[in-house]
Order: sequence, then structure tokens, then C-alpha cells
Amino acid sequence: MLMQKAGWDAAVISGTDPHGSEYLPERWQQRKWISGFTGSYGTVVITRDHAGLWTDTRYFIQSRKELEGTEFELHPLRVPKAVDYPEWLATNLTTGAIVGIDGECVTYRDAERLRKALKGLDATLDSRASFLNAIWNDRPGLPLNPVFILEEKYSGKAAREKLEHLRQQIKEEGCSHIVLNSLDQIAWLFNLRGHDIPFNPVAVSYALIDEKNATFFITPGKVSENVIQILREQGISVMPYDSFPVVLQSLPPQTRIMADGNTLNYSTFQALIANCTVQDVQSPVILDKAIKNSVETNGFRKAYLNDGIALERFFFWLVRSLEKDIVLTETDAAKKLSWMRTLAEGAMGDSFQYISAYGPNASLPHYAPNPKTALSLLKKGLYLIDSGGHYLYGTTDITRTVPLGPLTQAERQDYTLALKGMIALSRAVFLKGTKGTHLDMLVRDPLWRHRINYGHGTGHGTGHFLCVHEGPQDIRMTWRDQDLLPGMITSNEPGIYREGSHGVRHENVLLCNLLEENEFGIWLGFETLTLCHIDTSPLLISLMEPSEVEWLNAYNRSVYTKLAPFLTYDESVWLEKKTAPVVM
Amino acid sequence: MLMQKAGWDAAVISGTDPHGSEYLPERWQQRKWISGFTGSYGTVVITRDHAGLWTDTRYFIQSRKELEGTEFELHPLRVPKAVDYPEWLATNLTTGAIVGIDGECVTYRDAERLRKALKGLDATLDSRASFLNAIWNDRPGLPLNPVFILEEKYSGKAAREKLEHLRQQIKEEGCSHIVLNSLDQIAWLFNLRGHDIPFNPVAVSYALIDEKNATFFITPGKVSENVIQILREQGISVMPYDSFPVVLQSLPPQTRIMADGNTLNYSTFQALIANCTVQDVQSPVILDKAIKNSVETNGFRKAYLNDGIALERFFFWLVRSLEKDIVLTETDAAKKLSWMRTLAEGAMGDSFQYISAYGPNASLPHYAPNPKTALSLLKKGLYLIDSGGHYLYGTTDITRTVPLGPLTQAERQDYTLALKGMIALSRAVFLKGTKGTHLDMLVRDPLWRHRINYGHGTGHGTGHFLCVHEGPQDIRMTWRDQDLLPGMITSNEPGIYREGSHGVRHENVLLCNLLEENEFGIWLGFETLTLCHIDTSPLLISLMEPSEVEWLNAYNRSVYTKLAPFLTYDESVWLEKKTAPVVM
Repeated sequence: MLMQKAGWDAAVISGTDPHGSEYLPERWQQRKWISGFTGSYGTVVITRDHAGLWTDTRYFIQSRKELEGTEFELHPLRVPKAVDYPEWLATNLTTGAIVGIDGECVTYRDAERLRKALKGLDATLDSRASFLNAIWNDRPGLPLNPVFILEEKYSGKAAREKLEHLRQQIKEEGCSHIVLNSLDQIAWLFNLRGHDIPFNPVAVSYALIDEKNATFFITPGKVSENVIQILREQGISVMPYDSFPVVLQSLPPQTRIMADGNTLNYSTFQALIANCTVQDVQSPVILDKAIKNSVETNGFRKAYLNDGIALERFFFWLVRSLEKDIVLTETDAAKKLSWMRTLAEGAMGDSFQYISAYGPNASLPHYAPNPKTALSLLKKGLYLIDSGGHYLYGTTDITRTVPLGPLTQAERQDYTLALKGMIALSRAVFLKGTKGTHLDMLVRDPLWRHRINYGHGTGHGTGHFLCVHEGPQDIRMTWRDQDLLPGMITSNEPGIYREGSHGVRHENVLLCNLLEENEFGIWLGFETLTLCHIDTSPLLISLMEPSEVEWLNAYNRSVYTKLAPFLTYDESVWLEKKTAPVVM
Repeated sequence: MLMQKAGWDAAVISGTDPHGSEYLPERWQQRKWISGFTGSYGTVVITRDHAGLWTDTRYFIQSRKELEGTEFELHPLRVPKAVDYPEWLATNLTTGAIVGIDGECVTYRDAERLRKALKGLDATLDSRASFLNAIWNDRPGLPLNPVFILEEKYSGKAAREKLEHLRQQIKEEGCSHIVLNSLDQIAWLFNLRGHDIPFNPVAVSYALIDEKNATFFITPGKVSENVIQILREQGISVMPYDSFPVVLQSLPPQTRIMADGNTLNYSTFQALIANCTVQDVQSPVILDKAIKNSVETNGFRKAYLNDGIALERFFFWLVRSLEKDIVLTETDAAKKLSWMRTLAEGAMGDSFQYISAYGPNASLPHYAPNPKTALSLLKKGLYLIDSGGHYLYGTTDITRTVPLGPLTQAERQDYTLALKGMIALSRAVFLKGTKGTHLDMLVRDPLWRHRINYGHGTGHGTGHFLCVHEGPQDIRMTWRDQDLLPGMITSNEPGIYREGSHGVRHENVLLCNLLEENEFGIWLGFETLTLCHIDTSPLLISLMEPSEVEWLNAYNRSVYTKLAPFLTYDESVWLEKKTAPVVM
């Protein structure tokens, strides 16, 4: 009806907000509202006779479940011969078609990709902000939570210093301004944090930086006088969120401004192009943010120590509870772990929606238990928990798969092979210039030799008390021309998923360090930050090489040594047993 | 003087011929003639006050030796902060500069790259064919060797069939014609071979194919009446080499023609652009040629069997000769192996300039012994021989590094680590869609863990009784978006080079095969074609994993089983000892 009124042949509802966020404030959860799909990646397309959801391998099983009984059809991505929605529209619309998009909630890059795909049809993109308002009666408003300063003892670098460096980079690009819309970039740059988005400690805002000024656009009332004062000392002024478009329009004509078409929304980007000379390049803040300073890396080490304490206490509690035949659901277990984390100094809540998955549920790589349907844990099979915490000094992300009792041979094999993959990356040594794509192969090789693969990437960057997923580096098959650099923090999480049966994933987080320079080049390696024992009882030792067992024993030994002093006597006795070396 | 007369500020002398060949007929060995550098890759640039040679890591040591005492300066490529000659010229010439190039002896792609780099200078490219003729008085003429037909029992497919498939591909590209200048593409397509280029059984020629006709441009007198008759039966007509430019000029205006700017020379490409609509795409013949048919792969198996017999006889002879204190130089040894190869049915000579390198000479990855300065082999240290043969049914390429007596610990370590790399690739299993770049990492990992690297690629494609190096696939760090596909034949040759001390390289050649399809995708793997024992005496077993030793023992066992029936009693007794399993 909405589409008829607007005269549209298709409407595209992307999965993002004006800030290109991964997790969204309720206001912008349009895709979930219209389709019921709760995954973090996907695009909804509605035509006159079709409703489709495009999503990737991670969400095939989940989306099929969630879309059951609706008229939405799943269009799989990242599989051979996948057809993405722009190409699908190009073959399913007729010449002269009009396609409606919410220009605020789609990136410039995605809109351009759509425009290009539809070029042959002479189609029109009709971009209207918030077009769902007309039918979404109880749509939530903008979030109104206060922001707070992240002290320099945590951030390691004053906002003023970060701004100075950014201004150099703007100059090198031949520009005078940069516009930022990514919430984690703004939070990092200004040393600010917020509560606007579940799991991401950021505030809905924009930023505009030029040679002299830095402006923070945020809804009034969210910034206290005290914060305004501290920002002013760092050379940052505050203006209302709503005034952002007006300020952009009043920029002097021919201003040379940097904007990142990969994250900036289409409406803002178009407004800039109309007025300014836009340099469409990756925001330099992305790389600066990814390379952690020594205060941040020390903070991460502390975060993983506290995380490890919480995890070992949780697993001890879990084992004892099952021994006592206490009935626990996936939700009960995950909530207990979240609570364990809150006991640490500076704990700031979960860093993402936990995955707590027993038995066949673990075959959904991104399963989240529904309290009503959550399975109870039985004393057999594998239980997978992927969770993380925020601390003022760092953000954690860890997955452990643990046996709750007897295992099948298939479970033991998959457990062992996925672990071999994780070990391979943990101990990799590599030349400067190496990309994540190069290293990805090391992780897959032990699985591939058994003709098993997993349909997701191996690793993602992690923010410092910021988003648990961040770029620019990653570790996956798809080529990305980004070196892995000292100071980067990246996850290492191979898995094996058997629909209807079980799932395994082992995840540690790695800090990239400089090792040495020699005649062959500059050598880098990883320090494993994660501290939590890896259960050795499910292993099929015959599948392991001696050097892998050696790595595993050393890892478990270091977990025990570092965590035992913080555990109760019973806990530490238990952990000592769990970390006893494997003998080949 | 030549440059002054032409009014040039710089002259670029590329390392190729009008056909983009790797090995060149004497006529086109301009780079060697002017600089003395004999490597297979490099560009000479001469300005009014500088003479430079640009080449890559493979040739650093060699080129420094060969350029010693000349005014040529080495500009290293494929190292951090390398500046290639177009960029070097851009910063070392002044506005309005004129740069002379031989338009016949530079590819269109390279000329365009140079033109782009010099754009800021408003420089002019002055392209003149064979400008060195003015000063190169004894320049050799065009080669005049006869061509011959490769029978279908060897090629596995009639030229007529290959042409039909090519015409489909031309049509799919929206074109009516394709022009070919790569000699191996023409030879493969027409099932022809020649003797014009050392080590490459090809004939200097061009080809033009349209919907109905296929024309082979070659110097008259090189094609017998008999060959002309056979070609005619396949729908191929013959015209003089010199008439090629005239025929191109007489194409109907607006002919849509496919041409590959990566291999086609600048002069020809420019002539096409002036007249036709050129589709600048990779020639489809490259991929067709790389995917061997079953007749070709069986031919390769036979070639490697005969090659293995020659190699084992050679190594047996070498050992016995050294025992008898016979003095042998690097050249003597290599010549003996070449001779051993000629004893096989259908042997057609060496497939490339052998590398026969003793001790420190082996640290030059592309060392070729000079008969006058060749070292004598002593009863200690490592000896590396990289050689190959052509047979009517296939082309071989193999490197073995063997101990001639006591070894240092460093030699043993490097021998072992390079072998671990080779084994990793040999037994890789991978999903369809995997590129060479992905697999490269598996080979480097065992070396990198010891902070050792090699400055060349890991693998190259190999032609079927054609060029020993061919595309489109390769195995190296640099990203190339080309899947490894069943039927491709690729080398596997990691090495370790210690300047002034020793060098190690182990090279086997691998056939890519389909393994199976399962829920995760289509799985591929390698069959090792090379049959020649790998000496186990230098191994540091403590550096090896059990599964690596298992692979090695199985490989050596299969070498013995397959070759022993063709050896003398003494040879087979010796080989049995050399292939005895290693016990961990």
C-alpha cells in the first residue's frame, strides 16, 4: 500500500542505520520489524509479487526458521552462483522501474551498487528518509542516553592528540575537512562512550573536523556540562544532532572534504557532493583505531585476565550444577556467565548477544537462545558458549565448546580438527606485508584435509571498549589488501557445524606483535590474550601432531598459572585437573 | 649517440620480443646485448646520465655479478619500497621529456603503464621498431627452423575442435575475431611445434581467427607442403609472417576483435585500435591450454616416469663417480643428466636452461654454470640441480638438492624446512574456488616459523611439450584471482638461499585432480607427477611431524616401486637403500 502510494515497483530495506552500525538502536531495526529476521546481516527487498531476505551462510539455518510461515523467501549469499539483490532486481524488474530506498539507512556505496546494477533498466532510485514511519506506528524515537568520557588512563591518548594526527592525514589527502558518521570512530576519536546501542558503548552522533575545529553533533541533553567542559579542553565543540545537515549545507562551496562512502549514508553523501569536492576514501580513523597503543593493549591483557576468572568460575559452577542434576537451560547458563563478568572491576556489560547453544543448536553459528524455547543442558554431548564482556580497559570475545558428558566419535573428531585450526593461527609467524587472507589458509588446512569447511571468516578485529567487531583487518578467504600490523587485535575462531547434530567453535583473541627484523624482512607474531582452559578430554590425540599438543599443554599451563591465584581452593584444584598436560 | 640523434631523454629496452616470450630468439636478446645481464626478467633504462637494470629478487646476486664493471646500476624489484622504472623515470625526467621504446618489443600493457606514470611530465613515448638495429651491427635475423605437427595421439584434441571452442568464446565476448601473438598459444591451438626458441618448442608466428577462418602467419619456407596440407584439413591457412600487419590493416573498419594487452606488443595493439574495436581481455586460449585433457595428463605421467629413470641413473652415476674421485664440474654433471634424458622414447631436449649449482652457487636461485668458471663437485655440502626435459608427450621440471658428503647443521636445517614446505602443498586438499595465493601460505609456514623466507613464487604452471612456465595459475603471495582447477599442472618449489654458503630447493610437479563433492563443496587435491627419490640422510628428524615423515616414506616407496623395474640391478639396489623408510 505504501509502495503503491509512492508509485514504487520495489522497496529495499537495508540492515543498517544512518551510521552504518552493525547493532542498531530499536528505532532503526527496520529489517527485523518488517520480516521478523533477527540476524545481524541481511537486506529485505519487497516487490509487487515477492518478499525476499538476502543473507549469508552464517544465517541460513536461523533465517529459514525465523521466516517460516511468512511470505519472505531466503536468498542465500556467499555460496556458489549467489545472486545479490541488486542483480536480482535487475532481472526481476522492468524498464523504467522505480525503487524506493531509505537514503539515511543505506550506505553511499550500497546505493551506488544498486544504481549501477539497475542502469540497464533505466530505473530510478527514490530515496526518502524514514519511509516506514507511515506504517510503523509505534516506531521508537532517537535514544537519549547520556555520554561519558573515557579517561586517558584507559584510552592512552588524549583526544587532542588524536585530532592533531587526523588533521595531518586530512592535509596529506589534500583536504580541509572530514566528516565522520561511524559511531565507534567518533567515540574513539573523542574518547567518549555512550549507551545508545545494545552491546556497543557508543552514542548516536556525527562529527565534522577541519583544520581548527572539531564538532560533535549529538542530541542535546545527552551531554552534561562536565563533559562539554572536558571536550572543550580537547578542542571539541558540541552542536545538536539535528543541526548536522544544516551545517554541511553551509560549508563554503568547493570545500575539499574527506568522506567514506563505505560507511556514510547515501543522503548525507549526496548532500555533500551537491556542495563540496568529496574525497571518497576509507576514513583514516579506522586504521588508527585498530592499532592499539600500549595502554590499550595492557588494558586488554587485564580484561582477559578478569574474563578468564569469570569463565573458569562459570565452568566450575556448570560442572557442579550438572553433577547435582540441577536443570539449566541455555539461557540460564549464559546469564550466569554474564553475571560472573559483572563482578570484575570496571565491568561494563556484555560485548555482544551471547551464543549459548547446546547440542544441535550449536550447528547455527549465530544462534541466540530464546528464553522460552531454550534447550536444557544434558549430561552428554557438546555445549558451545560464545560471549564477551566490556570493561573500561578493554573488550573481550571468547568461544569455548565443552563436553557435558559422553561424546560421539564425530563430535570428538570435529572438536579436535577445529582446535588444530585454531592452534595453527595462534603460533603463526609472518612477514610484514602478510594479509589476513594469507593466514586464513593455515586455519582451514587441518579441516580441509578431512574435507570439512566452515562458512564464515576466521577472524575479525576487536575494538577497545568499543565494538566487538571492527575493521580494517580480518582473516578470511576473500582478499582484503590490508596488512596485519603490530597492535592489531584479531579473533581466531574456526568452527565445524553439523546441522541437526552438533557444532564446535574454539575462539581465542590474538594481539599482533613485532618479533624481530632479519635478512628476510620484519617478522610478526601473535600473543594469545584469551585466558581460559581448553578441555582436552574430547581430543582424538591420534589426529594431532606433537607440536600441536605441545602448544596446547603450554597454553593450558599458562591459563592455570595466571588464573589460579584468583580462584577459590576448590576451583583451582578443579582447574589444575582440567589443565593437566596431554600425553601423546 | 643513438638517443641524441633521436632526441630522446631516455630509452627503455624491455626484456621481451614481439610475442611476449620469456625465452627469446637471439634476434631479440636486446637486454643481454646492451647490458650483459643474462637473467630471464628485467628492463634496461638508459638516460643521459644513468644506465639501470630493473629486476627482481631472483636475480639480485646474479645481476650484481654480471653488471660488475659496467655502468649499469641494479634497481631491485619485489622488495619493500621498490621503485619500478616508470615511477623512477617520472621522478628523474623533466617536463616534456621524450622516451624511446621499441613498440614491437614491449607489451601494450607495459607501454600504457609507462605512459600513465609519465602523464604528469607531459612526456612523449616515441615508439620505433628495432631502434637498436642502428648500432647492433651483427644482430641475428629471424629464425628459420621448420615447424612440425604434434599428432593427436599426443595432443588429445584436434586443432579443428580447439578452434570451434575458441570461436564460441569469441562470440560470447561479442567479437568476430581474435588475434594471437603468444607463441605457445598458437602452437597449442594449431597442434604445431617448432624450434625457434631455445627450450621452447614453438615457432615465431602470429595467428588471426575469425568465425570461419584461421590464419597462421609464419616466415615462408618454415612450413613444408605436408604440414600445410594437414593444417588445411584442420581449417587453417598459412600466410607470410611479414604480411601480418597488412592483413590487420585490411580488416573491415569496426571489426570487433579480441586482443590481450598483457601479451600483445604495443605496435600491433596500436595498429588494431586505429582500425577496429578492440576487446582487451585475457586470451581464452591461456586457460584452455592450462587445463590438460586426459591424453595430455597421461603423457605427463609417462614423461615423469622416463624423467625419473634418467634422474636416478644420473644420481647413481654421480655417487659412483665421486666415490672414484673423478673430478666433475657443475657443467659436466648437468650435461650428463641432459644426455640421460635423450635416451627416452620421444625425448625432445632440455625444457629450460638447467641450474646446476654446487655449494655457495646454489644460493643464486637462477644460477646457470658458465663452463669456464663452473665449480667442481667436492665430497661435502649440498649440490642443487634444477632441470627438465621435453618429450613429445609432456614437459618436465624438477629440482633435487642432494648431499655429496658431510653437511653442516645449517644445511641440514634448511634442507628439512624447505622439504616440509614442499610436503605441505603436495598433500593439500582444497575447495574449488581456492587460488594459488591461498595455498602459498601452507608452503611458507614451516619456514616462517623459523623466520626464513624465499624471495620467489612457490609454483608456476607447466605446458604440455610447450613452455615450462605458463599461466594463468601460479602459487605465490601476490593475489591472482585465478582458481586452481582440475587438469592444471603446477610446480611446487620452495627453497632457502644463504648467500655465500649454500642453497636448497625441492621441486615436484603437481596435477590438480577432483576428489569429491560433499555438503561443504567440491574438493580438489594434487597428484605428484615427479618420480625421483628425496634423499633422507640430510633430514633433521626432530623438525618433522609424524605425518610429514609418513608422506615422505610413501613418496619414496612409490618412486622405488615405479622406477626399479627400469633400472639395472646395481642401480635398483642403490635406489632401494636411498628410499628406505625413515624411522622417527
